[in-house]
Amino acid sequence: MKLHTVHEGGGLCRTIEVTVVQRQAPQLPPVTKFSPVADESETTGEELYIPPLNFAMVDNGIFRSGFPDYPNFAFLQTLGLRSIIYLCPEPYPEANIEFLKSNGIELFQFGIEGCKEPFVNIPEDTIREALKAVLDVRNQPLLIHCKRGKHRTGCLVGCLRKLQRWCLTSVFDEYQRFAAAKARVSDQRFMELFDVSSFRHLPISFSCLKR
Amino acid sequence: MKLHTVHEGGGLCRTIEVTVVQRQAPQLPPVTKFSPVADESETTGEELYIPPLNFAMVDNGIFRSGFPDYPNFAFLQTLGLRSIIYLCPEPYPEANIEFLKSNGIELFQFGIEGCKEPFVNIPEDTIREALKAVLDVRNQPLLIHCKRGKHRTGCLVGCLRKLQRWCLTSVFDEYQRFAAAKARVSDQRFMELFDVSSFRHLPISFSCLKR
Repeated sequence: MKLHTVHEGGGLCRTIEVTVVQRQAPQLPPVTKFSPVADESETTGEELYIPPLNFAMVDNGIFRSGFPDYPNFAFLQTLGLRSIIYLCPEPYPEANIEFLKSNGIELFQFGIEGCKEPFVNIPEDTIREALKAVLDVRNQPLLIHCKRGKHRTGCLVGCLRKLQRWCLTSVFDEYQRFAAAKARVSDQRFMELFDVSSFRHLPISFSCLKR
Repeated sequence: MKLHTVHEGGGLCRTIEVTVVQRQAPQLPPVTKFSPVADESETTGEELYIPPLNFAMVDNGIFRSGFPDYPNFAFLQTLGLRSIIYLCPEPYPEANIEFLKSNGIELFQFGIEGCKEPFVNIPEDTIREALKAVLDVRNQPLLIHCKRGKHRTGCLVGCLRKLQRWCLTSVFDEYQRFAAAKARVSDQRFMELFDVSSFRHLPISFSCLKR
């Protein structure tokens, strides 16, 4: 299903495309059980989980990572996800869509181009819409991901941290931990200038900001 | 108050010193309100929180960081902590003890020396005791910290991840994200060889491992 959200601002009419693959709870096919991989060490003989690249917990019910692939599905099942917040413009792979469908996970796609410096232009409106989806408790637990979990995901999480009233140094520290050698000044400038005041009225129940 | 836990193993009798500053809920003095710092940007006029260096959420009710200092206290208050798992042998600073007392936070100290390679000798028994304290839901929400939140904290979190059945690559990926240029082969070897089988019987209610 495609949702087209139209925004008016600064005399311009911009269209933000948000693709939502709806949860089909009542007609769910039987959940495919993905198995963790066998532990090759002879000491335990147990199976292991493979979290996606750059996986981390952001806050209660909010996770982040790079692009999850088939080997990560068993791990993702342990998170009990309700939604995926996908930040790339490319179509979601068929295998991932199947995984989402069979686990009743909704897909929110916010297509942000993965530009390289100095031609980076992070679309503020799209980040705003994505942040709204992240803050909606009905979508949690959720996983935010782009391709490598560094730039687009880093910017969105950084904006969330600003809303949690983290000082910029800590926002950048976290961003750089994931982006490492690929950290971008333009991303950090975007986060610095991102105005969170319009989100202040929203109810937030994070562990990192009791209010 | 000092607790001395005696362990027998391999014919040797080892003593592990665990310092516990007990929560004094009934006789609590009035909670000191630590204020976040003023935001210098004129756009919001709001106050900001300063998370400790290398702060992150590990899982539900489990946080990690470097050594928290006075400027971080307002932020720490938002976490609603019940305990601190402190991994250095040095006495806890007076200001931090006061903060803990006035917020009813219990201190568990597991004194692990901060050695440098190639003379690293991570005491397995102490990590085991610390992991037990971390897993005890009565102590959560809790903050694990050492000095910089890289090596001692990284090893303890890595052992927790093994218990959560993360594959070693992901355990190391997370360790290296925090240790960065200071990552140690000896720490990684310790995590690889750490046997979690004795913890398997404990009830665990993490989001990253539903079982």
